[in-house]
Amino acid sequence: MQLHGYYRSSTTYRLRIALNLKGLDYEVVPVNLIESEQSDPAFVARNPFGSVPMLEADGRDRAQSMALLEWLEEAYPEPPLLPASVEDRYTARELAYAIATETHAPNNLQVLKYLKAEFGASQEQVDTWYRHWLARTFVPIEARLEQLGSGEFLFQTPGLFEVLLLPQLYNARRFALDLEPMPRMRRIEAACLALPAFQRAHPDNQPDNPERKDA
Amino acid sequence: MQLHGYYRSSTTYRLRIALNLKGLDYEVVPVNLIESEQSDPAFVARNPFGSVPMLEADGRDRAQSMALLEWLEEAYPEPPLLPASVEDRYTARELAYAIATETHAPNNLQVLKYLKAEFGASQEQVDTWYRHWLARTFVPIEARLEQLGSGEFLFQTPGLFEVLLLPQLYNARRFALDLEPMPRMRRIEAACLALPAFQRAHPDNQPDNPERKDA
Repeated sequence: MQLHGYYRSSTTYRLRIALNLKGLDYEVVPVNLIESEQSDPAFVARNPFGSVPMLEADGRDRAQSMALLEWLEEAYPEPPLLPASVEDRYTARELAYAIATETHAPNNLQVLKYLKAEFGASQEQVDTWYRHWLARTFVPIEARLEQLGSGEFLFQTPGLFEVLLLPQLYNARRFALDLEPMPRMRRIEAACLALPAFQRAHPDNQPDNPERKDA
Repeated sequence: MQLHGYYRSSTTYRLRIALNLKGLDYEVVPVNLIESEQSDPAFVARNPFGSVPMLEADGRDRAQSMALLEWLEEAYPEPPLLPASVEDRYTARELAYAIATETHAPNNLQVLKYLKAEFGASQEQVDTWYRHWLARTFVPIEARLEQLGSGEFLFQTPGLFEVLLLPQLYNARRFALDLEPMPRMRRIEAACLALPAFQRAHPDNQPDNPERKDA
């Protein structure tokens, strides 16, 4: 498998965690979003969405991280990213998809570029926007985690929710969101970051990170 | 089942189509987004995301439309919204999740309100923003449909993709996006709108639509 992506892309980071949790080998193929390499005609011919991640596996190029995660779960069911019961699967997806749709989407790089180009947004205004959409989803997620009585993970082992959460916590720290009111999320973060699958997926440890720590 | 939602909310419209396709009975409980009824403390106590749709079923309140659609498919498998093969399921989800994350999310009402309040965006600028994110996903979806050789539906019967597509085509017409370059989408739209499941789900036919046509 080849994972085309960018070290700091949240959606690429999701895939790295999921592939690691599944124990699947993959080669990282860097796509530099700052230099708009995802818009190269050769790349768009393979992925008309012009987005990362793109996973090349079994002779097919697949894009769209949430569809990829659901596909991974069906094509490589063990170890599972989703719990067994229909009810628990709903619970995991509710929190995961809240992040995918409500937090990540308004904060993706294309949207931030548009704010600067069309509305003349300053970096400070962009940072405020970014924190706004993070907090708007983090607050209800923390509330749900409290209702559910979460521990080290949402369920027994890290899965779809943690795959979505960790990249957003990385973003939250980059954009200096106050995480003090979210102790349950921070507990899950600490438990995940103690695991090799999450450590190897971290942006700090990617070959295309110019400030790579283990280089 | 009770479906709490708003006639013009794309995510509520998704659920109406899916419930109709599954042949499930539900009662519509209007939540007026313009009057911010989704932020009422009594509603937020049930759904901490303060969002619609919220589906009340089997004694549980569920929010997050994509998680709800995946749950419906698992809890009520017949008739299916997703095809049987893992590969085709990926194909359907790729297009459906592209709409859920890339088109819908930057265009939801909360984001548009933020643009007006914080960046002083005019209605014309908001409309341009709206069309921008629609087109940005519609163009590659049309390209994928051409690659796949789609007909009346993505697969034999309407499913997850059509559930996501029709509400965005309704939005596209409201915001006057030029759909001329998207003949494959328009063909699917026409085939869907000929079916009672889609007709009954249409915003024009909802009890909370002040301009309801069949009233």
